[in-house]
Amino acid sequence: MTVPLKAIDGNADLEALMTDLAVKARAAARVLALAPPEQKNRALAAIERATRANAPAILAANAEDVAEARAAGITSAFLDRLTLTPARIDGMADGVATVREIADPIGTVTESWRRPNGMTIERVRVPLGVIGVIFESRPNVAADAGVLCLKSGNAVILRGGSDSFRSCRAIHDCLVQGLREAGLPEAAITLVPTRDRTAVGLMLSGLNGGIDVIVPRGGKSLVARVEAEARVPVFAHLEGVNHVYVDASADLDMAKSIVLNAKMRRTGVCGAAETLLVDRAAATSLKPLVEMLLDAGCEVRGDDAVQKVDARVKPASDEDWDTEYLDAVIAARVVDGVDDAIAHIHDHGSHHTDSIVAENARTAEKFLSEVDSAIVLHNASTQFADGGEFGFGAEIGIATGKFHARGPVGAEQLTSFKYRVHGTGQTRP
Amino acid sequence: MTVPLKAIDGNADLEALMTDLAVKARAAARVLALAPPEQKNRALAAIERATRANAPAILAANAEDVAEARAAGITSAFLDRLTLTPARIDGMADGVATVREIADPIGTVTESWRRPNGMTIERVRVPLGVIGVIFESRPNVAADAGVLCLKSGNAVILRGGSDSFRSCRAIHDCLVQGLREAGLPEAAITLVPTRDRTAVGLMLSGLNGGIDVIVPRGGKSLVARVEAEARVPVFAHLEGVNHVYVDASADLDMAKSIVLNAKMRRTGVCGAAETLLVDRAAATSLKPLVEMLLDAGCEVRGDDAVQKVDARVKPASDEDWDTEYLDAVIAARVVDGVDDAIAHIHDHGSHHTDSIVAENARTAEKFLSEVDSAIVLHNASTQFADGGEFGFGAEIGIATGKFHARGPVGAEQLTSFKYRVHGTGQTRP
Repeated sequence: MTVPLKAIDGNADLEALMTDLAVKARAAARVLALAPPEQKNRALAAIERATRANAPAILAANAEDVAEARAAGITSAFLDRLTLTPARIDGMADGVATVREIADPIGTVTESWRRPNGMTIERVRVPLGVIGVIFESRPNVAADAGVLCLKSGNAVILRGGSDSFRSCRAIHDCLVQGLREAGLPEAAITLVPTRDRTAVGLMLSGLNGGIDVIVPRGGKSLVARVEAEARVPVFAHLEGVNHVYVDASADLDMAKSIVLNAKMRRTGVCGAAETLLVDRAAATSLKPLVEMLLDAGCEVRGDDAVQKVDARVKPASDEDWDTEYLDAVIAARVVDGVDDAIAHIHDHGSHHTDSIVAENARTAEKFLSEVDSAIVLHNASTQFADGGEFGFGAEIGIATGKFHARGPVGAEQLTSFKYRVHGTGQTRP
Repeated sequence: MTVPLKAIDGNADLEALMTDLAVKARAAARVLALAPPEQKNRALAAIERATRANAPAILAANAEDVAEARAAGITSAFLDRLTLTPARIDGMADGVATVREIADPIGTVTESWRRPNGMTIERVRVPLGVIGVIFESRPNVAADAGVLCLKSGNAVILRGGSDSFRSCRAIHDCLVQGLREAGLPEAAITLVPTRDRTAVGLMLSGLNGGIDVIVPRGGKSLVARVEAEARVPVFAHLEGVNHVYVDASADLDMAKSIVLNAKMRRTGVCGAAETLLVDRAAATSLKPLVEMLLDAGCEVRGDDAVQKVDARVKPASDEDWDTEYLDAVIAARVVDGVDDAIAHIHDHGSHHTDSIVAENARTAEKFLSEVDSAIVLHNASTQFADGGEFGFGAEIGIATGKFHARGPVGAEQLTSFKYRVHGTGQTRP
C-alpha cells in the first residue's frame, strides 16, 4: 500500500477509483462465496498471526494518527476511541480467533422438503455479496468487520474515519496478508485508500450496484446520514432509547439489580436503558429504585410522581422521554400498568431493546408480544443486547429495521439463501 | 365506498390523502400483528363467501372497465388480463380458501436456545408492517395480494391499474366486508381510492415511513420504475432470463422433456426458459433438441453451431442472450461444458431460475453451487419457479434480490422476527 494520504484530485477521479474498487470487490466476492470453510479459516488464522506480529507497526501508525488528532484539538472521548494500545491489539487478534471458531454459515441447509412429485427443495445459505462498512474513529472496526464479512463469504469495502486512516491502513495490511497467505483475493477486504470524505457519499450511492448493503458503525449523525442518503439496504440502529418496565408483580430485589445493571453497567453502549417505567401499582418499589439510582451516581429526571420520592430528582422535560443519554442519566415515570408501559414505548421507543421485570407470566407475555422491538426481555437486563451475549461469537452491529437482519447482526445475518432443487426429470403439468 | 372516479384535485390533496391512508394502515397493522390465527381465518372465510356472493357485482364493475378500455383501443392481451369471468372469480375465491388453509406464520418460534447463564432466547416471527402492492391490469391481484398480506399479519395498501379501477373496487368491497365480519380494522386492506397516477410516485416515496416494502406486480416497465424510484425495500424480479443447460452427461429423453416443458408449457410466465445451452460434448443431443423445439412451433435463434443443425434456425444477435421473450422463441448456443455454461449465465442471466440436465452428480452440484440465482434446479423444469409448486400455498411474486425475501415470496417471506428473551433476573457481568 503506497497510496498517499492526500485526497485524490477531483471527484471524477475518485468516482472512477471507487467504481474500480467495487468491481474488484465484486469479482472477489464470487471467489469468496465458493471458498471452502477451511480456506477462510486459514486466512483468519493468518490474519490473527499478522495482527499480533505487526502490533508495533500498527501502534506506530496509530501514534501518528493520535498526534495529528491531538494537534487538531479533538475531544478526549474521541481520543480514547482512536487510541490503540498493545492490549487493544491483543483484543482485536482475539476477536479474529473467535470469528475463526464460529460455525461457517455458508452452504448450510436451513430447510429441506420433498414435493409430492418427488422433487426435493433445499434452502441453502449463500453470502450477500459486497458489504460496505462506514465507520468513525475506532480503527479496530476494520478488523472486526473485515473478518466477520470474510467468515460469511462476503467481500467488504471498509471506509474508516479520516482521523484513523493510518491506523486502519496498518490493520488492513494484516488482513490482506492473511488473504494472500490463504490464496484468497486481496480485494475481498478492501480499504478505501483515500481520506477524501466524498468517498462516503459514493458508497451510499451503491456504486452502480457495486455495493449490496451498508453497515454504518459510529455515532448518531453518521447513522442518520447513512439512513437518509443510502440507495442500498442499511443494517443499523439510529439509537437505543431502551426501557425497563417494573410491573406491580415484580420482585423488588430483582428489579433493583436489573435496573442498576441496565442503566449503569456501561452507560455508553446502545443496549443501556434510558427510561425507567414503574407501575403505579408498584408504589412501594418506586422510592427504593429511584434512590438506588441516585446513590449510584445516576441523574434521575422524573415526572411528578418520581420527583416526590426524592429531592435529588430533577423534573423531566418532554424531550427526556425521547433521549438516548448514553450517560449516567435516566428518565423515569410512573405508568398505569403494562398497557400504559407498552403505549409509552410505542410512542417513545426506538425498536431496539426493552425489558419487563414481572413475576406475572401473562403480563410478561403481553409485554413481549406487543412491544415492537428487535429484542424484548423478561426479567433480564437490556445490556444483553449484544451478538456475543446472544452466542453469535461476533457482531457487525445491531439493526432495528425489520428487513433481513434484525437485532445483533452476526455471521448468519450477513447471508442470503438460494433454493436448490433436485429432480429426476420432473416437468410441470 | 363512494369515492368518485375522477382524480382528486391537486397533488397536495392527494399527498394528504395518501399520508392519511398510510397512517390508518399503520394503526391497522398494529392490530393485525396481534390478531390470533382464528380471527384472521374468520376474515378469510368471510372474504371467500363475499367474493362468491358478490360475483355479479364484480362482473358488472369489470364490464364497465372492459368497455372503457375497449373504447380506448387497448390490445387484446391487455384486454384478456383485465377481463374477469365467473370462472376467474371462482378461481379468486378458491385462492382465498387456499390462503386460509396454509399455516399461520406469525408467532412461530423458528429457533430457540439457552445461554450458559440460563437465559432462553427465542426467534419469533412477526409481521413486516405495511406492504404496498402496485399492480397493473389484472384485478384479481387485489384479492390474491390482499389475503396473503392479511394471513401474514401485514396491512396492505393496494394500488391497481387505472384501467381496472372499478373491478378492484368491487373486489376490495369483498375484502373489507370480510375484515368487518371478523372484527378486524378495515384499513388493514386499503385500496388507493383514486385513479390519479401520481399516487404511485407517492407510494414509492414510502409515504414518510408509512410503507415498509413495495411489491410491484406487472410488466417490466412497472418493475423497472419501482426499482429505480422506490425509497423503501422492493420485493421483485425485473425479468426471468432463465437457462436450461444440457450437459454431456444428460439423458437425452429427459433433456427433451425438460427443455420442451421449460420453454413451451406456458411461454408468458417468469419461470419460462429463454435460453438453451448445450454442452459441445453433447453433439448428438443438439439436433434432436433443436428440432423438437422447432417442431413444437418455437422459433430458435442460434449461434453458428445451432444454425448448422436445421435450416429453420435463425441467427442469434448479441441482444438475444439478454432477452426475456415471454413468447415461443428461444435463444440457443453451444458451450464448452458446465464452466462455460456458468460463465454464460453469469454474464447474461437475471438471477431468477436456471436448470441443469445432467446425470453426472458432481457436474450438477457445481452448477447448483456456482449459478447465483434464486432458484437452481437439477433435472427439473424451470417452470417450477412458483410459490404454489414450492408448497407455499400462495405467493405475492418472485424476488431475485438477495435481501430478505428471495425466490417465491409466500406468507413466511412476508414476515420479520424479534428476539424474545426469558430470564430469571440475569444481569450482564
